[in-house]
Amino acid sequence: MMHQQDLPLLVDLYELAMAQAYWHEGMQDRAVFSLFFRDLPENRNFVLACGQRNIAEVLEGLRFSEDHIERLKQLNRFQPGFLEWLRSFRFSGSLHAVPEGTPLFPQEPLLEIEAPIAEAQILESLIMNYVHLESVLATKAVRLALAADGRPVVDFGLRRMHGIDAGHRSVRAFRLAGLSATSNVLAGLDFDMDVNGTMAHSFVQAYPDELEAFKVYARLYPGTTLLVDTYDSRRAVQRVVSWLREDPAAKIGAIRLDSGDLAAEARDCRRILDDGGFPEIRIMASGGLDEYRIARLLAEEAPIDGFGVGTAIGVAVDAPALELAYKLTEYAGEPKMKSSSGKVSFPGRKQVFRVLGDDGRIVRDTVAGRMEKAEGQPLLEPIMEDGRILPEVVGSLASQVDGAQQAIASLPDPLLGLEPAEPVPVQISDYLTQLQRDTLAVVAGQRR
Amino acid sequence: MMHQQDLPLLVDLYELAMAQAYWHEGMQDRAVFSLFFRDLPENRNFVLACGQRNIAEVLEGLRFSEDHIERLKQLNRFQPGFLEWLRSFRFSGSLHAVPEGTPLFPQEPLLEIEAPIAEAQILESLIMNYVHLESVLATKAVRLALAADGRPVVDFGLRRMHGIDAGHRSVRAFRLAGLSATSNVLAGLDFDMDVNGTMAHSFVQAYPDELEAFKVYARLYPGTTLLVDTYDSRRAVQRVVSWLREDPAAKIGAIRLDSGDLAAEARDCRRILDDGGFPEIRIMASGGLDEYRIARLLAEEAPIDGFGVGTAIGVAVDAPALELAYKLTEYAGEPKMKSSSGKVSFPGRKQVFRVLGDDGRIVRDTVAGRMEKAEGQPLLEPIMEDGRILPEVVGSLASQVDGAQQAIASLPDPLLGLEPAEPVPVQISDYLTQLQRDTLAVVAGQRR
Repeated sequence: MMHQQDLPLLVDLYELAMAQAYWHEGMQDRAVFSLFFRDLPENRNFVLACGQRNIAEVLEGLRFSEDHIERLKQLNRFQPGFLEWLRSFRFSGSLHAVPEGTPLFPQEPLLEIEAPIAEAQILESLIMNYVHLESVLATKAVRLALAADGRPVVDFGLRRMHGIDAGHRSVRAFRLAGLSATSNVLAGLDFDMDVNGTMAHSFVQAYPDELEAFKVYARLYPGTTLLVDTYDSRRAVQRVVSWLREDPAAKIGAIRLDSGDLAAEARDCRRILDDGGFPEIRIMASGGLDEYRIARLLAEEAPIDGFGVGTAIGVAVDAPALELAYKLTEYAGEPKMKSSSGKVSFPGRKQVFRVLGDDGRIVRDTVAGRMEKAEGQPLLEPIMEDGRILPEVVGSLASQVDGAQQAIASLPDPLLGLEPAEPVPVQISDYLTQLQRDTLAVVAGQRR
Repeated sequence: MMHQQDLPLLVDLYELAMAQAYWHEGMQDRAVFSLFFRDLPENRNFVLACGQRNIAEVLEGLRFSEDHIERLKQLNRFQPGFLEWLRSFRFSGSLHAVPEGTPLFPQEPLLEIEAPIAEAQILESLIMNYVHLESVLATKAVRLALAADGRPVVDFGLRRMHGIDAGHRSVRAFRLAGLSATSNVLAGLDFDMDVNGTMAHSFVQAYPDELEAFKVYARLYPGTTLLVDTYDSRRAVQRVVSWLREDPAAKIGAIRLDSGDLAAEARDCRRILDDGGFPEIRIMASGGLDEYRIARLLAEEAPIDGFGVGTAIGVAVDAPALELAYKLTEYAGEPKMKSSSGKVSFPGRKQVFRVLGDDGRIVRDTVAGRMEKAEGQPLLEPIMEDGRILPEVVGSLASQVDGAQQAIASLPDPLLGLEPAEPVPVQISDYLTQLQRDTLAVVAGQRR
């Protein structure tokens, strides 16, 4: 298993190779790299930026140990002087980032890093890995929260997430995205999110009689949720009702349906519970749910009070990757850009200005040069300087969640829906447009 | 960031809740849970089972610390006696598993666990998380290796993988699946896979002149690969050829194309290199490649000698999840199964027998009871007993890779292609069919 202290070696070889070349050539000028995306995935109206805080913490603590240096020697590519440079490596740069939980559109940077070029280059894959994971998962989870329209959505995704790091960090992203609770004990404790859970089919099966399993659970966990679909949901709920009527001391908070026609089963179970005198017992649904199925269930007025969601959010199943790019936009004060076919980008360090209307909704964004003034609220703010996280820039997780929820609520209604919607207009400032033109002219020299 | 020692808390709450119920009720009989899948994802002809070795190591070392116990108390659900049970928790069960790198079909267990029921229940999410990740990634990667038809496929996926654990373990899965190399330094070193890499566009951009960047790299890394598409690939290769003809000391191993019409660019660059007298310089391609694009490039006879693949394998983008199920199949010697609508499974502990034809290809599989004899090679073998990994059952990674490659090569040709193919016939033994019938009859009592 990977040890956390080995994080500095979790790089792509070319990053170390390029860093050694910069070191070898004495190229120590500052570079600016921008992390952004050119296109939204299908089925996404925005990206919810997330992961900036965690990567800042990683960067602050990153050190190459003697053991790392020894291991790098095995690759027979690195010179003693460069290994010495790595030995004394401390990230000395700055990070500007949008607050976590900010909805973004193409060409808007999630994060910009400024540092001596070798430092910034070494961190490429690590920064991308951190921000990509959390943004991918938050961007999916917010759709589930929106589809559930105020009903709780509980994360059941641990078993399908890609590894234990994802299984942990996901929950913080889900909290920012507006989910209500998680089944994940460690992550729930670490990120102060409600931890809940019910029972598995195996528990019911381990008893000769389903009702006996329910009674054991209710005795131990008053107000628990019973999983009723191991054999036959309606029959199970009828038996639960009979039991509860005979035993007023027993307390059940909810039932959970995990298979079959959830709308029909929920309706029948609701009626059985209501007729039995238990209108306060809630109905939870799970089993292959995604935002579309949730929306359909609610459109059919299925009497479901909350949803457990696993695979859909655990791997962001319909868009498990964002085409995030980490692009050099400035070196030694010179604007930089690539001119490969079909890939538009803009040089220079940037700021995004967001204009809200009187109703608090986004009217437009402007991507501008970092030093420009433009109408609206600037989204990128410094979170690290000289390799240190700035104190008090990022508040408590609870205040971050509030900020994220407010930022999400500022999206125009169509963007809060599940169907593809017209994006917010994203303008490029005149300065940036001119800078792109000038930089392309310089670049054109390389094509001749 | 998650600390590795916190792994025991990376569970779904219901697992601890069920375990406490079993503890409370004194239910200590042995349970068998089977990890299998009911259906293949679209675009997959088989699942390449992977991850069994890593989870066995996790299980062997799993201990709840005082700190874990203190944290669990915060949930206000656990009784002192149960926390005491957790404090002395050691996995005492056995694991049977197919060798890593075995292609499997629906209903064939990847792994079966046998242990006192509370132990086996606690481990559900962790076992699934481990085996799911590695199997998902290996199952995708083998398709890339097959599509490349002997040409090297290099893993460039770290930046898009879901977190650092995936970024590490993936590479072991890729090696078993038949990839050639990785860009990932740590994982390459840990899993003894070739580490390679070239340069990023940023490196070229950092120099005023593209050729100057190439010269720096070639001087430092003789035989390196040059990324030629930052501005204009053909023009760049022409300049490289002129330079190499002037400077016979310079050695270039390959060029890499990362954008545009890869087939056309490769053809033109090949001609420029050949005409210039450098037929030995290879052409690598990357940039949004998946198995279909690779197959198309080869069908068009694009002169490409190797492929770098990122997103496609990094998140198994078209099927990032497998619907793995972890199902109770036996408790206290009694066969168990669920009878929810539409979900077929079989009770009891199992064995899979694989029959090969004279050509070494799979003719059929039989899923049978564990104690049955049937024609063919049994696939499941014990890898842990009494909570300890059996020595010498799992060989070196190199021998595992050989075994995996042999197992993959035993698939009938259509299954080795990219298009959906008729699966290998999977028979269910008469004994298992009868056991299912008998168990359903018992279960039916619960539905009345």
